[in-house]
Amino acid sequence: MTRAIVLFAHGARDLRWAEPFEAVADRVRAGAPGCQVALAFLELMAPSLPAAAAALVAAGATRIDVVPLFLGTGGHLRRDLPPLVEALRAAHRGVDIHLHAAIGEHAVVVEAMAAAAVAAAGFSE
Amino acid sequence: MTRAIVLFAHGARDLRWAEPFEAVADRVRAGAPGCQVALAFLELMAPSLPAAAAALVAAGATRIDVVPLFLGTGGHLRRDLPPLVEALRAAHRGVDIHLHAAIGEHAVVVEAMAAAAVAAAGFSE
Repeated sequence: MTRAIVLFAHGARDLRWAEPFEAVADRVRAGAPGCQVALAFLELMAPSLPAAAAALVAAGATRIDVVPLFLGTGGHLRRDLPPLVEALRAAHRGVDIHLHAAIGEHAVVVEAMAAAAVAAAGFSE
Repeated sequence: MTRAIVLFAHGARDLRWAEPFEAVADRVRAGAPGCQVALAFLELMAPSLPAAAAALVAAGATRIDVVPLFLGTGGHLRRDLPPLVEALRAAHRGVDIHLHAAIGEHAVVVEAMAAAAVAAAGFSE
């Protein structure tokens, strides 16, 4: 099995929007050695999820984990992403595609956001 | 000085969108004792930033730290939020209002997102 992780973010007109996501991707590469790691965007930025997945499959991926870099689960993750993932599965039969929860719903991320907010406001924990 | 922190998020039609933000607010309350902590939203959810700030000032806040719960700095934080904060300063003269960077740009949050993505995909760090 050749593994890949797609970090799926919203996208924005401003290129600087993607900077934290690129930083996350670098750290995921370090934490998942031997795994291909790619960013993909819902809109306004490239690559799209279909384009990113096609490139990973072309490079040999047989399992793709899609991790949404969204803080919460709103309409984009509830309505837009599931059919995109279903289309990936139809386009790449034989590739095992896993869709995960919004990154902001993980306890470690909630804790980190709270710690960063407390520190930014000048309170020490 | 009576302190307050406003956690400023995007908002969505789906009420469940706000769940991680409510969890962050609870943890910030624990980490910043004696400080009022409120959520506020750019759109689609209440309260707005002006309404949240007015309530905090009415409750005695003399310093408000606005922490954007956004992953990156796109148009909303670059164009929409600064004039909102300027309007708060004009509306509440004598209240010290600090605007902070997007929560997703803090190293601790980047690290946590990467750790959560790696763990979700089944790699152990």
